[in-house]
Amino acid sequence: MANRIITISREFGSGGRTIGKRVAEKLGIPCYDAELVNKIAEESGYAKEYVEEQGEYTSGGWLSTILSDRSNGLTNQDRLWSIQSRVITELAEQGPCVIVGRCADYVLREKADCLTVFIHASLEKRAERIVKEYGETDESPEERVKDKDKRRESYYRFYTDMKFGDARHYDLCLDSGELGLDKCVDIVAQLY
Amino acid sequence: MANRIITISREFGSGGRTIGKRVAEKLGIPCYDAELVNKIAEESGYAKEYVEEQGEYTSGGWLSTILSDRSNGLTNQDRLWSIQSRVITELAEQGPCVIVGRCADYVLREKADCLTVFIHASLEKRAERIVKEYGETDESPEERVKDKDKRRESYYRFYTDMKFGDARHYDLCLDSGELGLDKCVDIVAQLY
Repeated sequence: MANRIITISREFGSGGRTIGKRVAEKLGIPCYDAELVNKIAEESGYAKEYVEEQGEYTSGGWLSTILSDRSNGLTNQDRLWSIQSRVITELAEQGPCVIVGRCADYVLREKADCLTVFIHASLEKRAERIVKEYGETDESPEERVKDKDKRRESYYRFYTDMKFGDARHYDLCLDSGELGLDKCVDIVAQLY
Repeated sequence: MANRIITISREFGSGGRTIGKRVAEKLGIPCYDAELVNKIAEESGYAKEYVEEQGEYTSGGWLSTILSDRSNGLTNQDRLWSIQSRVITELAEQGPCVIVGRCADYVLREKADCLTVFIHASLEKRAERIVKEYGETDESPEERVKDKDKRRESYYRFYTDMKFGDARHYDLCLDSGELGLDKCVDIVAQLY
């Protein structure tokens, strides 16, 4: 089995992005995360911050996304989805790489030979981690994580019609809080 | 992290039982699967076949289990759940081991240091596997797998109140159909 692309889906704060980068370094292949956002921003004309947020999260809950006014055609988020999907497909065609987030597993499901990975961790461990990584804010870290979870799940569900976090969508799921980032990196690289 | 117990939850036909046995052999620790059924049968007085079926599957759907007549106290299945939980706890107290199925991950969640594993595979791969392992029957293999899935999910949901197959309940989830049994055995043993 020659897996050429590694897709990493991850819960907010689980360290999935760091794992993706380190796996890519270990294997000597590119990792697309921030680069992906830049490329999508370039092609779409949207600001990077807008792409970062709107390319993975609904603005409110699941209902607000369904109920968005589409009487005049696609929403901004729909347009972004379509550009994002195209950019991911193009990157995957260029050669072996790691792609973090943005439903790449779904976008590439019939287009590339993927090792699909999901990284998760308990709420406590993730809250701890985001304070260390992104610093303190007025909002409680648990609430920040929960809000991101809810909006990322809604996004995933709306655009892929699959349940975020269901083990059966992935080749490999790892609890980075229990296993630690080092072991996660080793296993993903080893399975490639 | 000294994981002493490995619990393996698995979809019917995914090869989780075989993986459990081979991991245990590799690590030189016991694997409880058939032995567990024997012990539960002994302690409960129920027949082995009854324990095998009723200790992991609801008879019908989720509703039929909720709606079972409990006006005279516990159902047979409730009694079996309680004996099963006690036997699992006792085995876990005796020393390091692998326990396959029977919601051991849930039973031991606060009682032992567990590496919790979930093994799954696509419907097609599992249907293929059960024909090879258990032979042909009149019923289509896909239907057999789907029926087992439905009843195992209901059982799990009723007794543990968690969603079967949600990656976030496990330290490690593996698609045995994509990765192959050998790699699954290696990774589980390595993480122990």
